[in-house]
Amino acid sequence: MKIDAQHITLVDHHKLTRFVAAAFEKLSVPPQDAAIAANVLVLADLRGVDTHGVIRFNPGSWYVKWLRDGEMSPAPKIHIVSDARSSALLDGDRGIGMVIGHRAMELAIEKAKVSGVGMVGVCNSRHFGMSAYYAMQALPHDMIGIAMTNAGRQVVPTFGSEARFGTNPICFAAPAQKELPFVIDMATTTAAAGKLEVAARRGASIPLGWALDEKAQPTTDPRIAQKARLLLPLGGTREGGSHKGYGLAILVEILCGVLTGTVTALNQNQDPRGHFFAAIKIDAFRPVNEFKNDMDRLINELKSTRPIEGQERVYVAGEIEFETAKRRAEIGIPLLGSVIKGLRDVGQQLDIAYDLE
Amino acid sequence: MKIDAQHITLVDHHKLTRFVAAAFEKLSVPPQDAAIAANVLVLADLRGVDTHGVIRFNPGSWYVKWLRDGEMSPAPKIHIVSDARSSALLDGDRGIGMVIGHRAMELAIEKAKVSGVGMVGVCNSRHFGMSAYYAMQALPHDMIGIAMTNAGRQVVPTFGSEARFGTNPICFAAPAQKELPFVIDMATTTAAAGKLEVAARRGASIPLGWALDEKAQPTTDPRIAQKARLLLPLGGTREGGSHKGYGLAILVEILCGVLTGTVTALNQNQDPRGHFFAAIKIDAFRPVNEFKNDMDRLINELKSTRPIEGQERVYVAGEIEFETAKRRAEIGIPLLGSVIKGLRDVGQQLDIAYDLE
Repeated sequence: MKIDAQHITLVDHHKLTRFVAAAFEKLSVPPQDAAIAANVLVLADLRGVDTHGVIRFNPGSWYVKWLRDGEMSPAPKIHIVSDARSSALLDGDRGIGMVIGHRAMELAIEKAKVSGVGMVGVCNSRHFGMSAYYAMQALPHDMIGIAMTNAGRQVVPTFGSEARFGTNPICFAAPAQKELPFVIDMATTTAAAGKLEVAARRGASIPLGWALDEKAQPTTDPRIAQKARLLLPLGGTREGGSHKGYGLAILVEILCGVLTGTVTALNQNQDPRGHFFAAIKIDAFRPVNEFKNDMDRLINELKSTRPIEGQERVYVAGEIEFETAKRRAEIGIPLLGSVIKGLRDVGQQLDIAYDLE
Repeated sequence: MKIDAQHITLVDHHKLTRFVAAAFEKLSVPPQDAAIAANVLVLADLRGVDTHGVIRFNPGSWYVKWLRDGEMSPAPKIHIVSDARSSALLDGDRGIGMVIGHRAMELAIEKAKVSGVGMVGVCNSRHFGMSAYYAMQALPHDMIGIAMTNAGRQVVPTFGSEARFGTNPICFAAPAQKELPFVIDMATTTAAAGKLEVAARRGASIPLGWALDEKAQPTTDPRIAQKARLLLPLGGTREGGSHKGYGLAILVEILCGVLTGTVTALNQNQDPRGHFFAAIKIDAFRPVNEFKNDMDRLINELKSTRPIEGQERVYVAGEIEFETAKRRAEIGIPLLGSVIKGLRDVGQQLDIAYDLE
């Protein structure tokens, strides 16, 4: 069957989750873990973080390939290496990052219940998808959640001409009362790597300050930037504050890598990943209702800001993603033909019923 | 005696610390607290963070004025409001931010010794000077230190034309073995407010992306920017990633303000400040030596990056400040005539021996 790679199909997220979970099961992942991994991927698609969703779920890429090749273990022995009252180090045993991340955050939450705070580092994991999933695990427990991961080398330090570390994202989630939770999920680069892909596909240029070319000169061509793999830290240039984005990326590498023993910035083989999770129990500090009411006041204060000329409104982090998730849960997740093809191919190869269109 | 405001005098940091401490004592601050407050201020001057040092120590400004006016309490009853195994909320009772911050970080460290992690929020404090002091308290304990504070409203959200929050800095310090510790201490704006002052004094222009004018249009004139008090979040513009700087600033406000009850972003009276401190005990995760050796490897990897054309070297966060502190400890701290005048005036008004020149 011929596929138009640019054609968009709306797919029901429940069906999509079941399909991806079924595929993981066929790849020898235990049912409970398969469901978790599928939930993380589809939540990214629901929230509009398409670069971290099922676009990576096809026979030639990432999770499926890694499980087939044995680079990733379908049934890892995730185990505690170090344990204290409010902290732990988990070894992910080369498992699926999403499953390891989910477990690690659960452990952080359990520790926070008892101690006020829980911090869990993870070594020997793999790509864990969208950070927001893990930070948001804290929300129903009336906790603040934090999730970070290191990533493969493709970012230059300020004044540097060679990639030394990854896009190292930081995610932070805090609950509100009537307002949507505050959720910031950001790569510590000016722009996430996926944005180059989007610009390249559109034939658009990218702003200076996003990336360098292969001679380490600023470029506005996304294809040249994709080839060079030299992203700039948040701030773009020294005078734009890129030493701050660079510093934040190393902060993430220290917590996810140096504290855990999986230092991606020092690894030529970029597959292993380290993560870092924290849960903060709000009522260990302040009554939950007072906190949530002040969150509402803060969020409303921000939203009430008069916009600059040419803009309609001021947003709060997470707002757009929650709105997108609500809409996509109703009308379906828009998937490109190329993504649909990947899913179909997975279905065919693994012999699972395909019912997404 | 006539003073040349631009003339520079080199001042011994021991003498300067003793002088400032003596002045605090004359202002009814107990000797131990006076020494702490003086140490924090002079450490900023030593490290080259001149905006947060004794420039603020003169009869008309900040600490001295606040103590005289009764806005700041010289002998506050700093007390614990909430306490859990690994967390606490401290009420600063309107005391000196430096003294409260020091105590709060000590408490975080004590909790981390027992639990692996300690987190302490602070309400009802005042300006605490340089964040790096507190994060660095963790280093001799083989811990990672984190310090944050909220600040008075002078930053616009992305797409916003009105100031809604402060420069809300984040500081993170981690020890190394033979290398200098990694210390990032950054305002979440593109440029700290003090940089506008420096540019204005020099008659230089500032880059677009630092600040807006009174009509919320981008400006390159630092005097116009100082008057408008509309700084831009790190990233500068939406395409430069300012939604990330904005998100980080609110992350800081949530931890320092909403979690503690001192939400500066909602306060017209901008004096009260909230802080947030964390200490992470390294060997709760991994043997300290392994951690420090990997820190050395990471730092050397970063420093070994080939620089771009026109640059001599790639720095690691904290390096310049440690080099500056070493030099200034040897040759003295260079103080402007205007700063010297402020110190002399304090000496005269409080009747303390002045021996700095």
